[in-house]
Amino acid sequence: MDKRFYFTTFLAALIALGIGISIGHFAIGKQQTTNSVKYERLTRQTDAQNYEKFISLVQAKNIEANLKDLTSRPHMAGLPEDLESAQVIEERWKRDGLQVTKPKYNILLSYPDNNKPNRVTLTTTDGTIIIQTEGVEKAYDPTQPKTVNPFLAYTPNGTVSSTKLFYANYGRLEDLKHLASIVGNASLQGSIIIMRYGRIFRGDKVIHAQYFGAVGAILYNDPADYAPFGTTPDQVYDQKWFMPPSGAQRGSSYTGNGDPLTPTYPSTDYMYRVEEGTISSLPRIPAQPIGYGEAQVILKYLQGSEVAAEWCGTLSNIRYRYGGVLLNKSSIEVKTYNRLERKDTYNVIGIMKGDIEPDRYVVIGNHRDAWSLGSVDPTSGTAAMLEITRVLGEMAKNGFRPRRTLMFCSWGAEEYGLIGSVEYVEEYVKVFGARIISYLNLDVAVEGNHTVDIKTSPLLFDIIVEASKLVPSAYDPVGKTVYDKWVDFQWNNVTNEPKIAYGLGSGSDFFGFDQLVGSSNIDATYMFDHTYYKSLSSYALYHTSYEVFAMMKNFIDPNFTAHRTMGQLMGVVALFLSETPVLQFNVSRYTIALREAMNNLKPNNPEALDPLRQAINDFGATANDFMRRSKLIDFENPFNIRAYNDQLLQLERAFLNPLGQGGDYTDFKHIVFAPAKGNKYAASGFPSVSDAVANGDSTEIDTEVAIATYFVRGALSTLKEFDNFFS
Amino acid sequence: MDKRFYFTTFLAALIALGIGISIGHFAIGKQQTTNSVKYERLTRQTDAQNYEKFISLVQAKNIEANLKDLTSRPHMAGLPEDLESAQVIEERWKRDGLQVTKPKYNILLSYPDNNKPNRVTLTTTDGTIIIQTEGVEKAYDPTQPKTVNPFLAYTPNGTVSSTKLFYANYGRLEDLKHLASIVGNASLQGSIIIMRYGRIFRGDKVIHAQYFGAVGAILYNDPADYAPFGTTPDQVYDQKWFMPPSGAQRGSSYTGNGDPLTPTYPSTDYMYRVEEGTISSLPRIPAQPIGYGEAQVILKYLQGSEVAAEWCGTLSNIRYRYGGVLLNKSSIEVKTYNRLERKDTYNVIGIMKGDIEPDRYVVIGNHRDAWSLGSVDPTSGTAAMLEITRVLGEMAKNGFRPRRTLMFCSWGAEEYGLIGSVEYVEEYVKVFGARIISYLNLDVAVEGNHTVDIKTSPLLFDIIVEASKLVPSAYDPVGKTVYDKWVDFQWNNVTNEPKIAYGLGSGSDFFGFDQLVGSSNIDATYMFDHTYYKSLSSYALYHTSYEVFAMMKNFIDPNFTAHRTMGQLMGVVALFLSETPVLQFNVSRYTIALREAMNNLKPNNPEALDPLRQAINDFGATANDFMRRSKLIDFENPFNIRAYNDQLLQLERAFLNPLGQGGDYTDFKHIVFAPAKGNKYAASGFPSVSDAVANGDSTEIDTEVAIATYFVRGALSTLKEFDNFFS
Repeated sequence: MDKRFYFTTFLAALIALGIGISIGHFAIGKQQTTNSVKYERLTRQTDAQNYEKFISLVQAKNIEANLKDLTSRPHMAGLPEDLESAQVIEERWKRDGLQVTKPKYNILLSYPDNNKPNRVTLTTTDGTIIIQTEGVEKAYDPTQPKTVNPFLAYTPNGTVSSTKLFYANYGRLEDLKHLASIVGNASLQGSIIIMRYGRIFRGDKVIHAQYFGAVGAILYNDPADYAPFGTTPDQVYDQKWFMPPSGAQRGSSYTGNGDPLTPTYPSTDYMYRVEEGTISSLPRIPAQPIGYGEAQVILKYLQGSEVAAEWCGTLSNIRYRYGGVLLNKSSIEVKTYNRLERKDTYNVIGIMKGDIEPDRYVVIGNHRDAWSLGSVDPTSGTAAMLEITRVLGEMAKNGFRPRRTLMFCSWGAEEYGLIGSVEYVEEYVKVFGARIISYLNLDVAVEGNHTVDIKTSPLLFDIIVEASKLVPSAYDPVGKTVYDKWVDFQWNNVTNEPKIAYGLGSGSDFFGFDQLVGSSNIDATYMFDHTYYKSLSSYALYHTSYEVFAMMKNFIDPNFTAHRTMGQLMGVVALFLSETPVLQFNVSRYTIALREAMNNLKPNNPEALDPLRQAINDFGATANDFMRRSKLIDFENPFNIRAYNDQLLQLERAFLNPLGQGGDYTDFKHIVFAPAKGNKYAASGFPSVSDAVANGDSTEIDTEVAIATYFVRGALSTLKEFDNFFS
Repeated sequence: MDKRFYFTTFLAALIALGIGISIGHFAIGKQQTTNSVKYERLTRQTDAQNYEKFISLVQAKNIEANLKDLTSRPHMAGLPEDLESAQVIEERWKRDGLQVTKPKYNILLSYPDNNKPNRVTLTTTDGTIIIQTEGVEKAYDPTQPKTVNPFLAYTPNGTVSSTKLFYANYGRLEDLKHLASIVGNASLQGSIIIMRYGRIFRGDKVIHAQYFGAVGAILYNDPADYAPFGTTPDQVYDQKWFMPPSGAQRGSSYTGNGDPLTPTYPSTDYMYRVEEGTISSLPRIPAQPIGYGEAQVILKYLQGSEVAAEWCGTLSNIRYRYGGVLLNKSSIEVKTYNRLERKDTYNVIGIMKGDIEPDRYVVIGNHRDAWSLGSVDPTSGTAAMLEITRVLGEMAKNGFRPRRTLMFCSWGAEEYGLIGSVEYVEEYVKVFGARIISYLNLDVAVEGNHTVDIKTSPLLFDIIVEASKLVPSAYDPVGKTVYDKWVDFQWNNVTNEPKIAYGLGSGSDFFGFDQLVGSSNIDATYMFDHTYYKSLSSYALYHTSYEVFAMMKNFIDPNFTAHRTMGQLMGVVALFLSETPVLQFNVSRYTIALREAMNNLKPNNPEALDPLRQAINDFGATANDFMRRSKLIDFENPFNIRAYNDQLLQLERAFLNPLGQGGDYTDFKHIVFAPAKGNKYAASGFPSVSDAVANGDSTEIDTEVAIATYFVRGALSTLKEFDNFFS
């Protein structure tokens, strides 16, 4: 046989061998492939299209429909409407594919008697009535369902009267102190004190008056703060969104948070209750809000010297006076018919389970209860939240699975003292502490149409800025983003970045997460132009019966694009937090925030701050080192992702006080960030370094600086390398 | 060309193709392989040989040498020897390859005046001294270095005397109550009370006496509890390991934990201190321990009726009486020269960094300070711990890397009130809370040579049993394991498993981890035979100057195999916890432990326990469901490992009170597990359901049952599926 035979055979074999090798190598998978694919899936970045898709799917008209429906019925806490509205949310979320539960708490609430309005009466010595307040706001729309009359929840029922009436401006501690310095402490005893709304929590006004010896208190909304363009019909509701003469702000006077009967613990069936009489955070004197039209008549009877300029409101034909014995020895009476009642309230919790990290939670929440129809507070937030879940539900139907668990909460009984959210946090504080990433609060989503206003943990600053660049601004040219709007109206020219406030404090449902769980949270609202509406402390019709759909539609957000922007922005922030394998918290932001907070403190003895200053410097160095190291970590290793993210979560937890709720100081934010709520010398509220500084109590300063230093050093240790946290 | 040509060519090609495919598939690696190998490494089981290797390398002779060296010098807290001994440990651990730090705390300590011994004096009316105590123990070995005289740390200096002396048995609250019922409360006022050691913490004896009106207290070790075979020289030290006539137990009388000046917070330089006068957990009356030889003389002067049988000790020629006015109106005086002093103390912390989960800690610790030479307490533990680190260091030199971080702690100032460990925990409580798996306490490693005795969290029960099957028992035939010994001497015939006690309580450095961090912990010791030495509450020479090396060598562990067993057992448990990717905690054990604890409660009204009973039933069902689900989890996914382990870690954390240290109830263990420390009606200690039951206070019972129920339900929620914890 010739050579060609062998050669051809050999050649064929050679080629076949090559082909075979190729097939074997490229065409046939290996067992490991499945593993490595699984492995890569665990650490893969999310598809950025998910963010764009979410933004594009949020519809203003849906949010408008949500608001219209939700504000068609009253839904005050503890009443049958509370459960009905909970069921509406429950059904919607089930339709969106969420797993839904409806936990119930039995709590202490407070109601007026709608057949017997609470009244304030001014009478002459011979018994002639000068004025008796209506106790009911004027109805502009006969078709509007009847809602609760103005009252101050948790103030006792009863009748008190006095021939002494004083005016104490905003009822701040410094206001009462100033008043006492003018008229003398003694003369305040047994008096009734009238104060205007604004600046601080209404409950503290009443407690302050009680603390200074008053037997009753009256609150009203002065036009200076709630009707900036005058009180003529053309300048107030229902022609404008400002307070009309008979309008009065309802609200709670309870200075605590959560069910007053179960401090620290959840209001479950098995839990014990404290005795009502022992609750110092409930006022003991009758108090009632009235319209400024009625206040105008009463203030005319004030005697005493005229007040300083900054105490003056803008009621016409009134000389604001400190007061004392009433003109012509007439007497003033406050008569209330409030009652305390144990009631059930409901939270609605909807879950979209995480695909890769189901035990990490990103939570969006808002309360559901409103004093009246609540078209701003809280339903603008709920209307937007329902559109967020609708869109995510739609994306889920098309295959989207969040990396981490998304959780949506509709809280009950917030208006009474954040009760629904605080009880829930108290019940699950350990689980949240170990697992939650952030709580995003969407209470008053829209109270204006100018720009987005945000309070946040410093850690989330960068994430919010990133999100603001993706979301269109409302009532602005196409293409203009929330970020662009900030450049025009909310810009820090020194740092060349948006002005975003650090620290949340209290006042809405973020409290439990911020102060008890210690997560890194956000509270956001679409705001009116503060530079134009200088004197407004909030939207004027806050907690009145005029918070109706038409008010929102006619005066605030006619085409609901402000609502849309809020839904898009909060939704995208939530997705950033749920979808990014490695959390993008910027720890150096905390250094800046701590330094700012400290620099606001001006003690007589500057050395008092030295330990805190040193701790913050050390924190800054550690934070920088952490950022440097984070660039060297192998983030293809899931354990590294988890360990790194957990350090970021632990950072904010470190500011919780180990004394827990048993301590004087709930957390660092009350010691340095937020001098908000009065001080230890007051009848209520937390002390803070700022208050100690203000009161010049050096022992108090040293104590609080030491604890603040402890928090900063604790936070610092969470950022250290794991074999090095103790050095 | 014939067909054979084509056929051969085809055949050759076919074979070559096959070979090629094989080469391609099997011989040539792919890119994914690296990833998948890395991935498999993260979830791979540790090599079981590591456990055997560790056990085989632990040497008794090394531990003996450690003990001999460490007990050659006194090392009392706050003195220069404290720092010296810390440096010895530091050097050893550096040699073992650990990363070592030596954190320092400035704390309040207490010392006697070694030039002026504290004395008790009995005098006749004419001033003749009947007896004045030596204030010094008899020295049997002239070469032994001088150590501190007997005293009660933190009792004030001063001189008190009375003509009334009472005997109050063990000084328990019930003992004082019984005494008062016999002699009347009034007559106790201004008296001095003598009590015998044993049963409860000595500090509570003093506080109880003070609470019942005594102006001074005397403690002594009755032979009934410390010299069971009589007091003749041949039956006590230095011929036996029992208490000789002049021996007296030293110790702290501080009923709190951690530096008395910095409750809740670490005793760092920047931290504020409370005023010494305000510390209720420090006794206000002078008190002194004396030898039973001296007590025997004094007790002869007691009058009043004879005590009940169970109050009688075994001092010869003594009729134990309740007391009253002393015989012949003689008077008794307690004169002490103690002083409080701010001192520095040191912890030594050694770290072997984890390879895969560096942010998870397995901690082994023991205190370093001793009242005298401390050959049992605490140095037997330190001697064993140093052998554990030596062996791990050797294994590390041969390539062993722990999966998780191993942490070793030598605590300062434990004898004064667990101060070094509590201050450290207070400084890093958040970091530990997030990261620690378990704390293994190795204080008194060896106080007998009979068998291993363990207190543990229920979660670790199965792990300890597994380890006990690998470790040889001491003073037993070759091949007999710790487990085998338990089968003989420590067996529960009902459950057919070893008797291991659930719950730790307080009394050594595990306190901070158990009560403030909430990790799942172990406390272990090699114990004498309780059934034979019935009356011994601890080893007889506890806290005397006779705790010397020779005592251990001659009477307790001649060949140090008991020490070796403890080193092997604790080391292997630590390795199980650090090397097993999926933690082997058995959550159903907690159901059993909770049920046992509850069944020990017998309230007059059994329904009072219904909420707790229901919660424990629900916990049991959830625990079973958790075990079932755990079999379905893909543990090749690192996120699943981490999430599952975290649930196990969170379970025990759930029993910490959200009131933190600010609350009445530190944690569940004080509410149901450990009625240990008196009750709210006493001068000190925590209330507990058991105490409430004992005192029949139904409001108190309801309150505590509610909180206990809250803890159980909180623990239950940590075991739920992540989208389901709230239901």
